[in-house]
Amino acid sequence: MRMVDLIAKKRDGRELSAEEIQFMVQGYTEGSIPDYQMSAFAMAVFFKDMTERERADLTMAMVHSGDTIDLSAIEGVKVDKHSTGGVGDTTTLVLAPLVAALDIPVAKMSGRGLGHTGGTIDKLEAVPGFHVEITKEEFVERVNTSRIAVIGQSGNLTPADKKLYALRDVTATVDAVPLIASSIMSKKIAAGSDAIVLDVKTGAGAFMKTVDDAKELAHAMVSIGNNVGRRTMAVISDMSQPLGLAIGNALEIQEAIDTLRGKGPKDLEELCLALGRQMVYLAGKAKSLEDAEEMLQEVIRNGKALAKFKEFLASQGGDASVVDQPERLPQAAYRIELPAKQDGYVAAMAADEIGTAAMMLGAGRATKEDEIDLAVGLMLNKKVGDLVRAGESLLTIHANREDVQDIMDMLYASITIADQAEAPVLIYDIVTE
Amino acid sequence: MRMVDLIAKKRDGRELSAEEIQFMVQGYTEGSIPDYQMSAFAMAVFFKDMTERERADLTMAMVHSGDTIDLSAIEGVKVDKHSTGGVGDTTTLVLAPLVAALDIPVAKMSGRGLGHTGGTIDKLEAVPGFHVEITKEEFVERVNTSRIAVIGQSGNLTPADKKLYALRDVTATVDAVPLIASSIMSKKIAAGSDAIVLDVKTGAGAFMKTVDDAKELAHAMVSIGNNVGRRTMAVISDMSQPLGLAIGNALEIQEAIDTLRGKGPKDLEELCLALGRQMVYLAGKAKSLEDAEEMLQEVIRNGKALAKFKEFLASQGGDASVVDQPERLPQAAYRIELPAKQDGYVAAMAADEIGTAAMMLGAGRATKEDEIDLAVGLMLNKKVGDLVRAGESLLTIHANREDVQDIMDMLYASITIADQAEAPVLIYDIVTE
Repeated sequence: MRMVDLIAKKRDGRELSAEEIQFMVQGYTEGSIPDYQMSAFAMAVFFKDMTERERADLTMAMVHSGDTIDLSAIEGVKVDKHSTGGVGDTTTLVLAPLVAALDIPVAKMSGRGLGHTGGTIDKLEAVPGFHVEITKEEFVERVNTSRIAVIGQSGNLTPADKKLYALRDVTATVDAVPLIASSIMSKKIAAGSDAIVLDVKTGAGAFMKTVDDAKELAHAMVSIGNNVGRRTMAVISDMSQPLGLAIGNALEIQEAIDTLRGKGPKDLEELCLALGRQMVYLAGKAKSLEDAEEMLQEVIRNGKALAKFKEFLASQGGDASVVDQPERLPQAAYRIELPAKQDGYVAAMAADEIGTAAMMLGAGRATKEDEIDLAVGLMLNKKVGDLVRAGESLLTIHANREDVQDIMDMLYASITIADQAEAPVLIYDIVTE
Repeated sequence: MRMVDLIAKKRDGRELSAEEIQFMVQGYTEGSIPDYQMSAFAMAVFFKDMTERERADLTMAMVHSGDTIDLSAIEGVKVDKHSTGGVGDTTTLVLAPLVAALDIPVAKMSGRGLGHTGGTIDKLEAVPGFHVEITKEEFVERVNTSRIAVIGQSGNLTPADKKLYALRDVTATVDAVPLIASSIMSKKIAAGSDAIVLDVKTGAGAFMKTVDDAKELAHAMVSIGNNVGRRTMAVISDMSQPLGLAIGNALEIQEAIDTLRGKGPKDLEELCLALGRQMVYLAGKAKSLEDAEEMLQEVIRNGKALAKFKEFLASQGGDASVVDQPERLPQAAYRIELPAKQDGYVAAMAADEIGTAAMMLGAGRATKEDEIDLAVGLMLNKKVGDLVRAGESLLTIHANREDVQDIMDMLYASITIADQAEAPVLIYDIVTE
């Protein structure tokens, strides 16, 4: 078998066999297939696509290119949630204790990464004492006893994907649905989950700018999951403006606590329930999505979800008193309002630009070496569709420096006020097959 | 400027500027643009093509990636002929003395290369004593005095093309007309010619298997030439069967001599006249293609063409007596006939397979290290459309080994005899713009 023939086959629009895909991914991982052949192949895929069967085979070949996590020692159906990434996305912090409160195992392996704010681990570290340096055995034991634990990523998961992703980034082959879908799904599958719930974001702050593109990606991922024996569902949700009100690490912990108490922002709550009911359903804890939502509402109402969050924080060394005394979370030195310059309705809050402003305050990392400031960030006081009067605060900047003129200028440029505007749709579609 | 953006631009079907193409070719030549970006770009070109302007800019960027040959010291319009490659193609050996006899400078830079038989230099070395080890100054002086000389390739011509060609070969991006056309034209232009005549072959023994593909390539090359100030014309000719009767080095020298005497195979003569009249016309020696053909016929009839060949051989150390005493050329030890197994008409003689048989006899190199046997090869006794009787010889094998059963088996498999068959068209089209 020669890689040049496989490139030609894809270039001519023909379907590769499972053996051919396996040969390619293994050779690429080992280095016997060079980058210059893989990039030509990726460009051919951009133009000629892959069939559902090829996508599933590519995903599994990448899963098998490295280590896989064995979660079989954990009792129950392990359901993982994945977001394609957005700004102010507090859903994981809410969902993890929420479904754990329903006896569903949440065995979360998480990273730090680059972005507008930190990753889930960074956010949790805003809770004094909280840490993820636990052994694999402790991790499994905690999930079995309290149904929830978070551990840092370790092991050599999907090296083929890591290598291919870096290559696609510099060869203009990122925007190919079969490659995006198999990249995401391979990581989730290698991490050991039995079922997967996907939050596919669309809009200015998302990778997929249009709803149609987001739907195509969601269907591609759900199809891969179901074809390789991992039940998968997806929600297509809005990311034209930030989700919820908080953008920042400690600020999002606070927002998650509010939401678990039933007092969070409506859009965040609605999305958490939409994703949560899929998780509960796929975990086999409810007969229907409607029943699942009932159960979630109930553990919010009766305080079990919030109690689970406290238990979780304490079990990994965290100071659970922050739940009732939020002032114990890291606080920024300055709170600076951003007054509206005119009367009107908020017509747009560009999620990507607002996220960048938060990152520039120190809430996220631009490079791996950057230190995160857990206290800083933004709290929105208005969202798209809201009426605002001149001088009224659009948002509050939580900063550890006094002069934030640069941030204010960016934020003004990212917010549009018009004579009329409506709140955007939050959930565009539910994808179950 | 970033290469990834140029890849994306081409991927999205947009036109690159001259500056962008120059940046890309220069960076690739110097190594600052890696193979994996260039291969992704080549695949994007496969799908999205290049405009005539882009093709001309790519050609000139490759010309300027290395040395160029300055033939300005040679008087007259230097017209180069290029063939896209075939089996038993003796045209260069005929055309060089033929047009030189009309006072047109033939400053031939030639190589050896791989193939069914040797290159032009290998063939000429079948003439005892002939050599191409002459200095650049001797080369120019000989063309000025006797209008014809051949020198081996030297200098670092079109390094960008060499690098890109090797990359395309292993990334399934060879079959892209803009890349094929710019590759060929950049080499011809760097070699210093003022005008170019192209022989674009089509059929089993050619790179372009169909007439339409050959026409597309011919138009692409003629357009590039004319867009960069090199007057260019092309002939689309048949390569479904070998051209002429001889396939081999000494055998083709003999065939060239016959043709210069007006006694060569009709198809070879016809193609030489078609290409020759374009050369004479582009050199400014005739007012029309018809006048040019008259002049060529005349120097064959009056012996000037053959005399020019003798003068040329002698001037580079060759034994010109081979022209009148062909037995002085290298002779193979065995001549073995290939008798027809049945009565009928020759319906096909697959040029590529027959060429491979000649190579296996030793007439050509499969790898750079192979030694060529100048004496061996094949002489066709029949061509497509000819009537043949069972037992009559289809061709004569000139071999330096007694057992040629493997070669005979190959040849029988490559020749089809049927109840009826016609000779193929030799010249499909003349492309002048």
